[in-house]
Amino acid sequence: MLFIQDGVGDRPIYKLGRRTPLEAANTPNMDNLARNAVNGLMDPLAPGIRVGTDVGHLALFGYNPLRTYWGRGPIEAAGINIKLEPQDIALRCNFATVDEQMRVKDRRAGRIREGTRRLARELNGLRIADDIEVIFKEATEHRAVLVLRGEKLSPEITDTDPGPEHIGEKVRRCEPSEPGLGLAQRTADAVNKFVERSHEILKDHPTNKARVEAGKLPANIVLTRGAGAALRMRSITERFGLQGACVAGESTVLGVARMAGFDIFTSPRFTANVDTVLEDKARYAIEALKVHDLVVLHVKGTDILSHDNRPLDKMHFIEKIDEMLGLVLSQIDEKVYVALGADHSTPCEVGDHTADPVPITIYGPDVLADNVAGYSERSCQRGGLCRLTANQFLLTLLDFMGFTYRYGS
Amino acid sequence: MLFIQDGVGDRPIYKLGRRTPLEAANTPNMDNLARNAVNGLMDPLAPGIRVGTDVGHLALFGYNPLRTYWGRGPIEAAGINIKLEPQDIALRCNFATVDEQMRVKDRRAGRIREGTRRLARELNGLRIADDIEVIFKEATEHRAVLVLRGEKLSPEITDTDPGPEHIGEKVRRCEPSEPGLGLAQRTADAVNKFVERSHEILKDHPTNKARVEAGKLPANIVLTRGAGAALRMRSITERFGLQGACVAGESTVLGVARMAGFDIFTSPRFTANVDTVLEDKARYAIEALKVHDLVVLHVKGTDILSHDNRPLDKMHFIEKIDEMLGLVLSQIDEKVYVALGADHSTPCEVGDHTADPVPITIYGPDVLADNVAGYSERSCQRGGLCRLTANQFLLTLLDFMGFTYRYGS
Repeated sequence: MLFIQDGVGDRPIYKLGRRTPLEAANTPNMDNLARNAVNGLMDPLAPGIRVGTDVGHLALFGYNPLRTYWGRGPIEAAGINIKLEPQDIALRCNFATVDEQMRVKDRRAGRIREGTRRLARELNGLRIADDIEVIFKEATEHRAVLVLRGEKLSPEITDTDPGPEHIGEKVRRCEPSEPGLGLAQRTADAVNKFVERSHEILKDHPTNKARVEAGKLPANIVLTRGAGAALRMRSITERFGLQGACVAGESTVLGVARMAGFDIFTSPRFTANVDTVLEDKARYAIEALKVHDLVVLHVKGTDILSHDNRPLDKMHFIEKIDEMLGLVLSQIDEKVYVALGADHSTPCEVGDHTADPVPITIYGPDVLADNVAGYSERSCQRGGLCRLTANQFLLTLLDFMGFTYRYGS
Repeated sequence: MLFIQDGVGDRPIYKLGRRTPLEAANTPNMDNLARNAVNGLMDPLAPGIRVGTDVGHLALFGYNPLRTYWGRGPIEAAGINIKLEPQDIALRCNFATVDEQMRVKDRRAGRIREGTRRLARELNGLRIADDIEVIFKEATEHRAVLVLRGEKLSPEITDTDPGPEHIGEKVRRCEPSEPGLGLAQRTADAVNKFVERSHEILKDHPTNKARVEAGKLPANIVLTRGAGAALRMRSITERFGLQGACVAGESTVLGVARMAGFDIFTSPRFTANVDTVLEDKARYAIEALKVHDLVVLHVKGTDILSHDNRPLDKMHFIEKIDEMLGLVLSQIDEKVYVALGADHSTPCEVGDHTADPVPITIYGPDVLADNVAGYSERSCQRGGLCRLTANQFLLTLLDFMGFTYRYGS
């Protein structure tokens, strides 16, 4: 069983006595595990390289993101269970708020959580060209996915979302990433048409009128980014001969897991935020372990609180995760290997992913316990695993479980 | 001088107080060396990757197995000093026992140790096709090597040996590894003919009749596997400008060493098993050091005992190796660099190679001693070398010895 605390890695925080949230948190279960385990540091790709949640999870699931990663869109599509056909182009979308001059007021429409299914239905199946089918579906909160289905489309296009550093600027035109890409021009035209039509359709929608009346920002446009073509990945079952399960709420993680061939255990109660129901995650994971070789349990809240620079809340949330871990440990066989890891660090005071390595732990009947003091960024510096990449971390875990192959004879 | 304890790395063993055989063994010489040396962990190829003895030694001798490894046959041929010509195909063979329906009773003919030279002579030079010459030679115990010499042969063929998990099944037909390989079909036909003829010739051979009378299993067939074409490797002398010597008993290690350009020091008393004469190995190594820059001393017994799950015997055998090390250390100049390593881990309770890293030590006048407690899997986790690959380990040793080149100016 592999526990992933998204973005848990942090840096010393003055208010916490120059400790990290993980160091400051009271985590008896993680610490006890680490003290009887082999520990170390992990770089998602390599030291000094920052990664996103998508790339971090591709690496943790044993893939080489440099070979398999072609844009976030297809991962988000998989996350909400849209099956892509080989020629499809998928884009991540946000419901957002623009003013009358099409300037972006809020990229997340006030982090809208309700009513997006109704809005999405208005856009799904939209006719923007005779030979391009539009599939549009809401994801968690303000997120959604756009799929363009048709021939002669290209993922080499730019984003219409101007990004977090350009609030107040106009919605961008979608363009080919490089001039002269004919298929990309055709695709960009379709995206621009879709974004324009989304504004026309959504701006006077009853859901938005109600939001404005309630003092909320209207979800009056869809912004696009991360265009990508369908990925082809060999599943973990094909690669290692194992059955995997992933317990998670976040669509990105679910998307990567689904593409990697994991069985998915999710629920509307898994909010990919701090209000997720951790006890249910624990229960699902224990259940999944009965019929799977590898169970991944992912928690997103740590990353959310880091992006929002809330170190104290992060510390408390880590303590809740520790309780969840205790619940799982109390109910699984002592022969099960239990690993702790993360997809990347998200130091609160940076508010973004950094390349700081994350602490890792492998606990199980046959590991050489290395006598570290507990599970944290600092104590794991002295661990017996030394410093591994995410791929190496997974392979080491699978090797203990007996799922690797010998090279040579 | 580089000491290689084959498969020495292990996992905690309950009977040994949750220590590894290396931790439990009384090894004053290794420990004293490590305490005054720089230590670390080593992965043969990379963390999480299991390797065979052949690949492990290719890596330890400074080669990239991903580039140089093309099947075990050519290594075994080199091990018993058969010089391959460029178009030869070499196969590993076992003398084995089959019943009258050609079902495999024992893949090693009761681990036959005597009389195989006589049996091999009957098969060497066998005519199986007008334009294919057969070279067949016995190796240690039940092992042998088949070389097919002729034009238009291919190593892309399957094994006739069904493998350890399929005892009781019929001898396999040799086939092209993938359909439609014409040269492979021609080669496979030749191998099948050879295997059939080996049974016809050996089943009533006097040596086998005597074995059956003595209650032993007859060596009544030859099984083949690991077909490979001749390798082309630049010798360590060409690559590093040094003269190397390898003191070993096992044909695989001798094969890799011979291909790498080491001078070979072997003897029938080096049995590649626990009854090898370690004192003689020490003497040969001390002798070899007088006229060589790098002497590799390999001991196989640790791996044998691990495959047989005999942790207590492994512990005792490690203590004997420690005495041998003491003998060597007492007789060599204090300026000689002494390194300890292994080709891979073979935990007794797994009974097979795993990806667990092995402890490494480099002792010598100019190393920065790192203050580890002794030579073991666990204490070397904190060593100053951190975690290296086998290639990096050899290069580090050669660099202390002054045999590396500068990259850049």
